[in-house]
Amino acid sequence: MPSLSKKSQAMPPSPIRKLVPYAEAAKKRGVQVIHLNIGQPDIKTPEVALQAIRSLRLEVLEYSRSEGNESYRTKLAAYYGAHGIAVTPEQILVTTGGSEALSFVMGCIADPGDEIIIPEPFYANYNGFAMANGVKVVPIASSLEDNFALPPIETFESYITPRTRAILLCNPGNPTGYLYTPEEIRKLADLVKKHDLFLVADEVYREFAYDGKKHHSILQEPGLDPYAVMVDSVSKRYSMCGARIGCIVSRNPDLVHSALKFAQARLSPPTLAQIASEAALETPQAYFDEVIGEYSARRDLLLEELSRIPGVRVAKPQGAFYCMVELPVGDADHFAQWLLEEFQWEGATVMVAPAAGFYATPGLGTREVRIAYVLEQDLLKKAVRILGEALKKYPG
Amino acid sequence: MPSLSKKSQAMPPSPIRKLVPYAEAAKKRGVQVIHLNIGQPDIKTPEVALQAIRSLRLEVLEYSRSEGNESYRTKLAAYYGAHGIAVTPEQILVTTGGSEALSFVMGCIADPGDEIIIPEPFYANYNGFAMANGVKVVPIASSLEDNFALPPIETFESYITPRTRAILLCNPGNPTGYLYTPEEIRKLADLVKKHDLFLVADEVYREFAYDGKKHHSILQEPGLDPYAVMVDSVSKRYSMCGARIGCIVSRNPDLVHSALKFAQARLSPPTLAQIASEAALETPQAYFDEVIGEYSARRDLLLEELSRIPGVRVAKPQGAFYCMVELPVGDADHFAQWLLEEFQWEGATVMVAPAAGFYATPGLGTREVRIAYVLEQDLLKKAVRILGEALKKYPG
Ligand SMILES: Cc1ncc(COP(=O)(O)O)c(C=O)c1O
Ligand SMILES: Cc1ncc(COP(=O)(O)O)c(C=O)c1O
Repeated sequence: MPSLSKKSQAMPPSPIRKLVPYAEAAKKRGVQVIHLNIGQPDIKTPEVALQAIRSLRLEVLEYSRSEGNESYRTKLAAYYGAHGIAVTPEQILVTTGGSEALSFVMGCIADPGDEIIIPEPFYANYNGFAMANGVKVVPIASSLEDNFALPPIETFESYITPRTRAILLCNPGNPTGYLYTPEEIRKLADLVKKHDLFLVADEVYREFAYDGKKHHSILQEPGLDPYAVMVDSVSKRYSMCGARIGCIVSRNPDLVHSALKFAQARLSPPTLAQIASEAALETPQAYFDEVIGEYSARRDLLLEELSRIPGVRVAKPQGAFYCMVELPVGDADHFAQWLLEEFQWEGATVMVAPAAGFYATPGLGTREVRIAYVLEQDLLKKAVRILGEALKKYPG
Repeated sequence: MPSLSKKSQAMPPSPIRKLVPYAEAAKKRGVQVIHLNIGQPDIKTPEVALQAIRSLRLEVLEYSRSEGNESYRTKLAAYYGAHGIAVTPEQILVTTGGSEALSFVMGCIADPGDEIIIPEPFYANYNGFAMANGVKVVPIASSLEDNFALPPIETFESYITPRTRAILLCNPGNPTGYLYTPEEIRKLADLVKKHDLFLVADEVYREFAYDGKKHHSILQEPGLDPYAVMVDSVSKRYSMCGARIGCIVSRNPDLVHSALKFAQARLSPPTLAQIASEAALETPQAYFDEVIGEYSARRDLLLEELSRIPGVRVAKPQGAFYCMVELPVGDADHFAQWLLEEFQWEGATVMVAPAAGFYATPGLGTREVRIAYVLEQDLLKKAVRILGEALKKYPG
């Protein structure tokens, strides 16, 4: 039997996936499993996007252009313009989700063995894209105590080697919920200019900023054009994760040209989803106001309920819809499995994402879990109640 | 300015793409450009697939499972069963087009520096996927004289090195139109077993076999289960290239498991397109009979018209919808550009795909072009007439 590539053998399975069989077994036993583990919003997709699909006229479902439909890129450029980011359609490459955008960007900027610095905890799939591209992730620990703010810029500088190609940031952060300040972005900007590195920002949660805070994009930072690469997605913005539309935005023409070569090899992003995404740009502001209002109410509820559980510490999220929670347990991995295998309260239990999978440094985050607040408030409240009851009983 | 990765700099741009500006300029001058260069069928997408989209019911466009919807994989397995290929839903991984399937398979079976043997000419994007994965393509020349039949198996064997990981086949072939015989597949099967290699078959044109010939899948070859990996796609079968749905099919569970890790990193294939693809499985046989009838009539017409042009030689295609044509010119690249820049006949010209881009060995195919017969017969006839007139005038 022929053997598989070393890199595929080393690829980590999804950190949540290993809990799935336990969740399924619990459901089979008749236990309700409340999912605090997933990043799939429950919010409705804007009607205008679904309507565009339902009134589809075409007779041949053709490839679109590799860089994405021109009409979509033109409207996207206008959308960014309205959000204070001046870009042209040529500076946008439409991708199959933010996922493909991240993968293309890594391929464009790093060869096997090259390094990308990422503050941890970080979105676990960065590991997968890095592995697939043979790129080494160099983590810099941020910490729950200060809500996962940017680590000292000197630490970043001390981690730069001749193989460092970029700093990758998720803003607002998954799993941290942290929103980087303009000052933090400025410091990073100075650093990448000094060392001639790319600054890549995953801004797929850019709309989700709370407490009246404003998101500061790397593309709003002056003087950063050749260095700044932004990754975006319609997945969370319009609650249309299944569309699989994202984009790369950069004012560095060589970077966009290089990404286009990867894009040409895979021919085109999905046509139907582009039609939906283009229509979604007409979503009224009221939709966002409502969604942001809802998420921020959920966050407040979550923080309040969690604060009642002894021994629990949280990082206050200012964006996205995740919250990192430190639990009074020795091993959050074991606790998460125990919740599904052994525990129930009034016929229900919860599934959380153990945070170790979001850290690259072994041993970090072992007492933390990530909670996604993509549930209605009643259910969210019940879920935290269950968590509290479980912690009373947990023998670990 | 930070520099781009070496691999992205080495990535070849699409071989057809460089002609696009000339085609656009010709159109601006008012010249009709007839496209013989593209693999985008003009055939209508089955109504049943489009109807499924138009009657979309869902309110939240959610991620699907990373391996694809269970209902779709179950029906796909039944579909393959009906085509003489017994597989289970677990042996199928749904991908974003055959393109992503190819990319995942390369990542699963080969590390940077490993080699994959491919008979040339081959689908040009194999180069892109190989480059992105750091994999070396080792071409073995097949030739127009014998319709691009399988090169001698001894040649394959002589190209095997300790780094060889797989043989990749396109059946029926793009750009060759060649349909491998069961005997040829058998020889390759023996070879991969002997040397413990994967046999990867890109069967995205599997439905398109003419003259009553039957396609022989590598998954129909006995004793090949651990070695055989099939790549498929809905793009051409249902003329729905823009859906971006394909799959990997293999009875090697480790291979499927490994591909799933790449799939998990990118979260999910497109949801809308999966709905359309699942519905497309209900396409009546009459649709295929008509499509195959149409393509084979076009092929006959094309061959007949080409045979009237002095100095032209063709490989008779038995499958897919491409035809490799040797022209009485010194440099088909130059000729293709000249057609767009300098020539017109009754206000029209043609765009062809110079074949050099389908060869990995420099210097091969320089007098050949690929013609895709995805045009109505009248237009196809006119296009060949233009080609003939152009060859009379071409100074090159
Ligand atoms: C931080 C972050 N980046 C990128 C993605 C990828 O999203 P998509 O591929 O759906 O655009 C996600 C999805 O959860 C995410 O959380
Ligand atoms: C031989 C071959 N393989 C794979 C593909 C990829 O097709 P898709 O990604 O649309 O499934 C194509 C498209 O033209 C092709 O010709």
